[in-house]
Amino acid sequence: MKTVVWESLSQVQQDSILKRPAMQDGASITAAISNVIEQVKADGDKALFSLTEQFDRIKPESIRVASQDIEQASQRLSSRMKDALEQAYSNISKFHTAQKPQPIKVETQPGVVCEQVSRPIQRVGLYIPGGSAPLPSTVLMLGVPAKIAGCRKVVLCSPPPIADEILYVAKLCGIDEVYNVGGGQAIAAMAYGTETVSKVDKIFGPGNAYVTEAKRQVSNDFRGASIDMPAGPSEVLVIADESADADFIAADLLSQAEHGPDSQVVLVTPSPIIADQVTDAIRRQLTDLPRAEIAEQALASSLVIIAESLTQAVSISNYYGPEHLIVQTKNPRELLPLLDNAGSIFLGDWSPESAGDYASGTNHVLPTYGYTRTHSSLGLSDFSKRMTVQELSAEGLKNLAPTVITMAEAEGLDAHKRAVTIRVEKLKSKG
Amino acid sequence: MKTVVWESLSQVQQDSILKRPAMQDGASITAAISNVIEQVKADGDKALFSLTEQFDRIKPESIRVASQDIEQASQRLSSRMKDALEQAYSNISKFHTAQKPQPIKVETQPGVVCEQVSRPIQRVGLYIPGGSAPLPSTVLMLGVPAKIAGCRKVVLCSPPPIADEILYVAKLCGIDEVYNVGGGQAIAAMAYGTETVSKVDKIFGPGNAYVTEAKRQVSNDFRGASIDMPAGPSEVLVIADESADADFIAADLLSQAEHGPDSQVVLVTPSPIIADQVTDAIRRQLTDLPRAEIAEQALASSLVIIAESLTQAVSISNYYGPEHLIVQTKNPRELLPLLDNAGSIFLGDWSPESAGDYASGTNHVLPTYGYTRTHSSLGLSDFSKRMTVQELSAEGLKNLAPTVITMAEAEGLDAHKRAVTIRVEKLKSKG
Repeated sequence: MKTVVWESLSQVQQDSILKRPAMQDGASITAAISNVIEQVKADGDKALFSLTEQFDRIKPESIRVASQDIEQASQRLSSRMKDALEQAYSNISKFHTAQKPQPIKVETQPGVVCEQVSRPIQRVGLYIPGGSAPLPSTVLMLGVPAKIAGCRKVVLCSPPPIADEILYVAKLCGIDEVYNVGGGQAIAAMAYGTETVSKVDKIFGPGNAYVTEAKRQVSNDFRGASIDMPAGPSEVLVIADESADADFIAADLLSQAEHGPDSQVVLVTPSPIIADQVTDAIRRQLTDLPRAEIAEQALASSLVIIAESLTQAVSISNYYGPEHLIVQTKNPRELLPLLDNAGSIFLGDWSPESAGDYASGTNHVLPTYGYTRTHSSLGLSDFSKRMTVQELSAEGLKNLAPTVITMAEAEGLDAHKRAVTIRVEKLKSKG
Repeated sequence: MKTVVWESLSQVQQDSILKRPAMQDGASITAAISNVIEQVKADGDKALFSLTEQFDRIKPESIRVASQDIEQASQRLSSRMKDALEQAYSNISKFHTAQKPQPIKVETQPGVVCEQVSRPIQRVGLYIPGGSAPLPSTVLMLGVPAKIAGCRKVVLCSPPPIADEILYVAKLCGIDEVYNVGGGQAIAAMAYGTETVSKVDKIFGPGNAYVTEAKRQVSNDFRGASIDMPAGPSEVLVIADESADADFIAADLLSQAEHGPDSQVVLVTPSPIIADQVTDAIRRQLTDLPRAEIAEQALASSLVIIAESLTQAVSISNYYGPEHLIVQTKNPRELLPLLDNAGSIFLGDWSPESAGDYASGTNHVLPTYGYTRTHSSLGLSDFSKRMTVQELSAEGLKNLAPTVITMAEAEGLDAHKRAVTIRVEKLKSKG
């Protein structure tokens, strides 16, 4: 990790040091994924079987996972594992249930009532990546809010063979259908539907560059599907003062660094002593970490920034806009009102990122890559949509008529005006 | 308008009759806009001056509108106009203020506190199209929630010369900066900034195919800007029973049809009598409509659907998912719980669409083109973002530790586990 003193940098250097690296150029990925999508649209299930054989080197018996397979997965899991998943399920359920929207109803002027109501998105698709280790936590983060929101159909795609933990959580969440499909072909199948895979309205979940590109392509087609949010490499920023425990910070930075070689890891502290201690502790902790090689790659492009003060540290964090923001200071809550542009915030010594990654109750699907400036951490509202309603009484329309008529005239929209005058005249003629 | 009986159509016919036409192919627009964006990125203000001269055939004195010009615009407006704009401002403010989010705080298990807080998006840009008539109403729909949300910088671009009504509303809303720039160059300027135009985080507002394409391009670049929602032609669907007033319905359908030749207009009714009466009334009302030619083009591709029942009419509406949904039935509120997939709903005889377009208080920026399935009507939350927060006590972490450790093991993420164990060990050693 490189250590820099913020005030010793020019404005241009400050800007450039916090700039995220551009993601890999995707021309070949774009073409490959267009091709996959076309195949799935043209050949449906048949394309899914052949693409799965080609990319995952496996021939599943069926695309849809049978319910008895899901039952058996549950029997194979240890009760320790099931207890853990159920505890996480319970906490995530509580926090997302608390996000249920209240309908809004306001009489803006006499006889003019405006409302905001919410409806679940009817059909949603969850994508769970495969790879070296299963991600049951992501099933929880997507499946729990989908069911609480009331989505009528919730389906899940994951590359086969699907791990028992994933199948167990799918059952826990009440996912309606689970499919043995991964990669771009899974995104295409959910966006357009096949004989077996249900078409959905919106697709959620993380994935590699191919999955990300597939999500981008189907979301640019109005006959495809919407998606949760733009994707990017995972990242953490830690704000710490001299009261912090360097071992804790090192462990937190490493838990981000082990995600992947492109993970971004930043420590901002006004204390040069803490900076040194953390650098040492990272070196120590790295020695027996199974994923040390990955973590070291991530650390190579990571930063320790010495700030002038905690206030400056907060400004640097707000400027960077990290996905995860850990605050290990004497009074972390004092800083909260000043913190902006973060996906999820972890306050104090006893709130490691992994608590939120798995089980505190917050969602781990978060905006990254600077999108915290404009995007929200995934929540219940991403699984529903708001509609507005207005109801005017005859009196209400009479009261509002002069305003609407005048504005319609200004905008040169005569039929807009007439939709009001024709009603007002009818009211007059009725006396 | 074409009249069809729903039950006489096959499933395939039903699907195809409600399919929206694909928007014009945009290869030439895509290239033209890439070029405009590159020019603005390379040459800043200089490009804005030359593109404005090229496209708008006007040479503004300055890019930023001077505050005395805004003052003078206000003096030129009639007090009738100012009263109307202020009434609309007041209603829109009331309804959007009511949308302020409450922070959420939940103790998901002992010692584990999860929160959701909201922060304004710091810098937002509003685009207001030019054209034959000014759109002060759109300034209200974007400017009011931006200021209520607390966005720190709110700027507005519109092609010069900017109408007095727009400048007046910009002042009323407290817009920080107004620029004499339109088209793709305005979107590029706000997304990347120039010497004069402030870079923003998110861009809102309607526009023609060029503006839409520019918004798409800058939103696909993480160094550009986010955007409000995908755009498409405007549309209305009316559900009416035999109790409805055919003149009112005709006026409402025409007020949508006059928006543009690509507007979509649909009437769904179980009453063949109403269907006939509305068709006649449209013909009558068209005769002296200034924008009759535009409306006639829109009506050519529009539909009257005879449903079997109101229940079926609701299903058809939910399937189509209209931007505007007008319900003129005996008991419109009874249908509300069944209605889904609409941008804004207008209940009853006295709630014409133009009331919501201008002044009832609801927002007129709405998902269209089928995006009502997944997208919300524009609201306060589009000008802010949600962050989650968690704070665990030492006790809370001890309670949660077995769950996090077990799940980290399942996912093969050892550093995630260690961020917890290192803390628990420290707690033990402290006794």
